[in-house]
Amino acid sequence: MRLRNKPWAEDRLNDFPQYVIQQPVSHKGKWHEVFGNDNPLYIEVGTGKGRFITEMAKAHPDVNFLGIEVYGSVIVAALDLLIEAEVPNLKLLNVDAANLGDYFAKGDVDRVYLNFSDPWPKTRHAKRRLTYKTFLEVYEGILPEKGEIHFKTDNQGLFESSLKSISEYGMLLKFVSLDLHKSSFEGNIMTEYEEKFSSKGNRIYRLEALFQ
Amino acid sequence: MRLRNKPWAEDRLNDFPQYVIQQPVSHKGKWHEVFGNDNPLYIEVGTGKGRFITEMAKAHPDVNFLGIEVYGSVIVAALDLLIEAEVPNLKLLNVDAANLGDYFAKGDVDRVYLNFSDPWPKTRHAKRRLTYKTFLEVYEGILPEKGEIHFKTDNQGLFESSLKSISEYGMLLKFVSLDLHKSSFEGNIMTEYEEKFSSKGNRIYRLEALFQ
Repeated sequence: MRLRNKPWAEDRLNDFPQYVIQQPVSHKGKWHEVFGNDNPLYIEVGTGKGRFITEMAKAHPDVNFLGIEVYGSVIVAALDLLIEAEVPNLKLLNVDAANLGDYFAKGDVDRVYLNFSDPWPKTRHAKRRLTYKTFLEVYEGILPEKGEIHFKTDNQGLFESSLKSISEYGMLLKFVSLDLHKSSFEGNIMTEYEEKFSSKGNRIYRLEALFQ
Repeated sequence: MRLRNKPWAEDRLNDFPQYVIQQPVSHKGKWHEVFGNDNPLYIEVGTGKGRFITEMAKAHPDVNFLGIEVYGSVIVAALDLLIEAEVPNLKLLNVDAANLGDYFAKGDVDRVYLNFSDPWPKTRHAKRRLTYKTFLEVYEGILPEKGEIHFKTDNQGLFESSLKSISEYGMLLKFVSLDLHKSSFEGNIMTEYEEKFSSKGNRIYRLEALFQ
């Protein structure tokens, strides 16, 4: 994602502590307190401008959602959506995915969504892909037994490397579509990227995989 | 594959015992005797009209190949190719894939190729797909430890169900391409189907997976 310099982003994120988690480490092992209920917690890693997670929160009021994005200058757009949506079951978190184990205990998170993650196409950058084994280790560490990741992308190379990565990790491939928008899958919520690239004719790939 | 009635097919297959294996059960555990060497044996399950396996045999003289096809009226075309090619490292076998365990001991076969297998798109026919778990059991029973299957198809649904099937079976996905003809994969030998359907613009999907 192309980033503009937004020096005011951090200030704005700090101005809305009711929406943007300020001290995530303090919630480790007790995230249900943040939402005031015992509903499951689904997170999106790389939430970008937040359209997916906001629409998911509206569509599933009995699930708690947390949109996680490393770039403050991007997640401010998600904050704008959240302020407008006024949904009680969505929060945002401006941290690096590599460090999620610092903020979540095993089982704190019930599902991980990855949508249109940066493909990092060069082999020397493979470790940065959000489906690389070190990230799968992070997700496994915060999900319960048989916890799931739900992943979609229009990037063929990223999807291929992700299929191999989840296989090498010993995960179970529960669902796969090689052309989501022409499939019978129901309830799909499009991200900003998904709408843009599928309208250009790109196929959308999607998988669900679980740790076992 | 559409089948024509060819009552003479069986006679013709019997007329060429040097090319068409007549008593496969008699070779169980000692297939190297059939070829008179200790080279590895690669089989194609569903060899159809035989173009792939014949070209493979020409390209890899240090590997033995066996083309297996249940339909006698189809494998006669492969026999014609083999008679013309005159390669010593290729034989044909007219049997049902479900029974391969009757003819091969564990480790008799070093690799299994599946190319453009019948997709059997209806759910109630899923058990007939050559990547269904009962067929994977058959392949595992005749391959050595870490034996591989190499599979390609232009059928999206079959490829999706195959990815799930090999994952559920606990196989390791070693290679995957979601658009083989636009990939960097080298040495691809096209089947009759592959040439026909890729020329119409169909993508070719390919995977390699191993038992572990």
